[in-house]
Amino acid sequence: MKSFIKYSTNSDYPIENLPYGIFSTRDKPNKRIGVAIGDEILDLSQISHLFDGPILKNNQDVFRKDYLNDFMALGRPAWLEARSKLQYLLSEDTPILQEENLRKKVFVKQESVQMHLPAKIGDYTDFYSSIHHATNVGCMFRDKNNALFPNWKYLPVGYHGRASSVVVSGTPIRRPCGQTTPIPDADPLFSPTRLMDFELEVAFFVGGPPSELGEPITAENAYDHIFGMVLMNDWSARDIQKWEYVPLGPFCAKNFGTTISPWVITMEALEPFRIPNNEQDPIPFPYLRHKDNCNFDIKLEVDIKTPNGIVTTICRSNYKYLYWTPRQQLAHHTVTGCNINPGDLMASGTISGEAVESFGSMLELCWKGTRKIQLKDGTTRKFLEDNDEVIIRGYCNGNGYRIGFGSCAGKLLPAITH
Amino acid sequence: MKSFIKYSTNSDYPIENLPYGIFSTRDKPNKRIGVAIGDEILDLSQISHLFDGPILKNNQDVFRKDYLNDFMALGRPAWLEARSKLQYLLSEDTPILQEENLRKKVFVKQESVQMHLPAKIGDYTDFYSSIHHATNVGCMFRDKNNALFPNWKYLPVGYHGRASSVVVSGTPIRRPCGQTTPIPDADPLFSPTRLMDFELEVAFFVGGPPSELGEPITAENAYDHIFGMVLMNDWSARDIQKWEYVPLGPFCAKNFGTTISPWVITMEALEPFRIPNNEQDPIPFPYLRHKDNCNFDIKLEVDIKTPNGIVTTICRSNYKYLYWTPRQQLAHHTVTGCNINPGDLMASGTISGEAVESFGSMLELCWKGTRKIQLKDGTTRKFLEDNDEVIIRGYCNGNGYRIGFGSCAGKLLPAITH
Repeated sequence: MKSFIKYSTNSDYPIENLPYGIFSTRDKPNKRIGVAIGDEILDLSQISHLFDGPILKNNQDVFRKDYLNDFMALGRPAWLEARSKLQYLLSEDTPILQEENLRKKVFVKQESVQMHLPAKIGDYTDFYSSIHHATNVGCMFRDKNNALFPNWKYLPVGYHGRASSVVVSGTPIRRPCGQTTPIPDADPLFSPTRLMDFELEVAFFVGGPPSELGEPITAENAYDHIFGMVLMNDWSARDIQKWEYVPLGPFCAKNFGTTISPWVITMEALEPFRIPNNEQDPIPFPYLRHKDNCNFDIKLEVDIKTPNGIVTTICRSNYKYLYWTPRQQLAHHTVTGCNINPGDLMASGTISGEAVESFGSMLELCWKGTRKIQLKDGTTRKFLEDNDEVIIRGYCNGNGYRIGFGSCAGKLLPAITH
Repeated sequence: MKSFIKYSTNSDYPIENLPYGIFSTRDKPNKRIGVAIGDEILDLSQISHLFDGPILKNNQDVFRKDYLNDFMALGRPAWLEARSKLQYLLSEDTPILQEENLRKKVFVKQESVQMHLPAKIGDYTDFYSSIHHATNVGCMFRDKNNALFPNWKYLPVGYHGRASSVVVSGTPIRRPCGQTTPIPDADPLFSPTRLMDFELEVAFFVGGPPSELGEPITAENAYDHIFGMVLMNDWSARDIQKWEYVPLGPFCAKNFGTTISPWVITMEALEPFRIPNNEQDPIPFPYLRHKDNCNFDIKLEVDIKTPNGIVTTICRSNYKYLYWTPRQQLAHHTVTGCNINPGDLMASGTISGEAVESFGSMLELCWKGTRKIQLKDGTTRKFLEDNDEVIIRGYCNGNGYRIGFGSCAGKLLPAITH
């Protein structure tokens, strides 16, 4: 496949990718749906009439919305039809969009746009599916020889997060204030968090029609409800978390901001990077079993950009380290009958591998503050400092091309104290 | 105040109440906003042009929506203006709506309508603010002498719940299946929950304009963001909860259905029932302090209606037993910078008093299954049985009138097993 839009072989957005996002421009501030291709964006609001396949010809309005939910709701046959049409329209052999006036009208440079959240997120759920991360946390805070809780290998542990504070890459995050207990067994104090952390995650957007309350979706059937993926930084205030989380889980330590990358990479683009699932022992209950592989080789990196502009890559991880698959996450989420909607967001939890450099949080990289990370500007970190920017990147290396996720970035602003 | 609509002194919906809800009728199935008065509903979509006060005259469209969010967003001055106008229009001294043809057009009998969720719920949060409930749970599952966790008296413990599965009163709930560990230390089993429970709660809807990410709201300022209250049943599968909840909190044990009553009782209607806050020791941090009383004398009852139609009241509790106020809940929710939106729902957690008959869940009433409740039909219960209907009612007794919440009802359907 070759597009008339030119890009290099290491572009995040070749014709094999075609991720969806929501953008606006200064001269046209209404939000609209676009598809990234090379350094440009194809404005779908301008070409919705060209989607003339059997499903989309009656649903062209989904491309004229300011969010992706309605397109997500159509389901995989529609997604495949759209992908096929987009690859045809962007092919160097197809003249339609190459006509000079139309080309000017329907393409926008990525550098000139403002990106927005890709969907109205109804509910956001965060899992805890990396065995290395869960083990690391267990070793640090509980018992080395009994690091995983008994339920961990039986079900994908997860919790409901806050949807309102999910923000798009580039949104600054304010260092939060809250209650912490720096002196063990003393009364808590109120102050800015001292242990500000990121969490490297990948999340999927739910697609397909809304499911019914009381009707679980098995892992075998779950793929129909998985639209595509984004990078995520689940910012965490570790000292606030430690004090508040018993017995009902993380709350204010995580609800002040969760950053996602703006382009939703479809499962179709990720298809060539599908790899075997990790072995599971014990064998999961039937509702969690699925025959297909649903693991993916997605390289993940975390950079810290210090205020002087110098960037240090502090973590190299991979989606493939996850123990539980997205199919299993979705099946477990709905097993008691919880209904899901297109635009719901389900995150992996921090993705850590076995090696130290693959740990997906400062908590693990600096092992609870017992060691330091050396940055390229000569400074060191145990947790994040004010004005640090955290940049997560992800990509799959194909044969002569790559499927890039772009980046998920956010700068930590100083706390406001009165 | 006297209305030309006739009702008895024990009506839930006198002219002093005027709760808002969303209804539809068989002959007119579009959802619309109504106000309950006696046994009738005033259809606001028909009289939006009558709201001619300084704020509402430019916002009449909020009364023509199929949800309350836009009206909620306007803030207290608009809510006061609407209340004042409604009391004027419904007064026996005001002829407008008494004109025969108009009266036929704008009033609908409550018995003839279908009620819907009052708002599009962006996020749903559940607190844990009853000291007697938290103490009971601590005694049952941990240590009698150390029942409350150390954080409990410093902050209103809470967790994010699932918004998609909040349903309106009358929606049946299916007994969920999931993983449980009936035999301690043995492998988990998959089966319908054996320990199906209700939780007696009261929730408030957030109002006012959306708040900004990174900008906490103090308890002193929180009242502007509290629109009104509903009854809630936070259905819980205790055996599933026990196995899953460590370390990230309740998940599938509570996300299969949360029932709320359809009429939102405004804070203005509850004003005469404001009572002193409960004493708090230690004194809360400044962000949690507020001068005004924000506690309410709301009588709460829970009935079980068995399949033979016989009703037994199994719990008599009161909102006033809550340790943390709604102002404090909202202040804590936003303290790290979490943003809130009109239509967000924040629930109290199970409301239990000191006396056994005031305990707000089967778990507590039957003390972890160690004693039985006698029902009027001769049967007994430790937990809920299939086809039991749980009906929560709430009301405030005024001088010659009462402010009723109506009811929050749901029938437990048998599990589907394959």
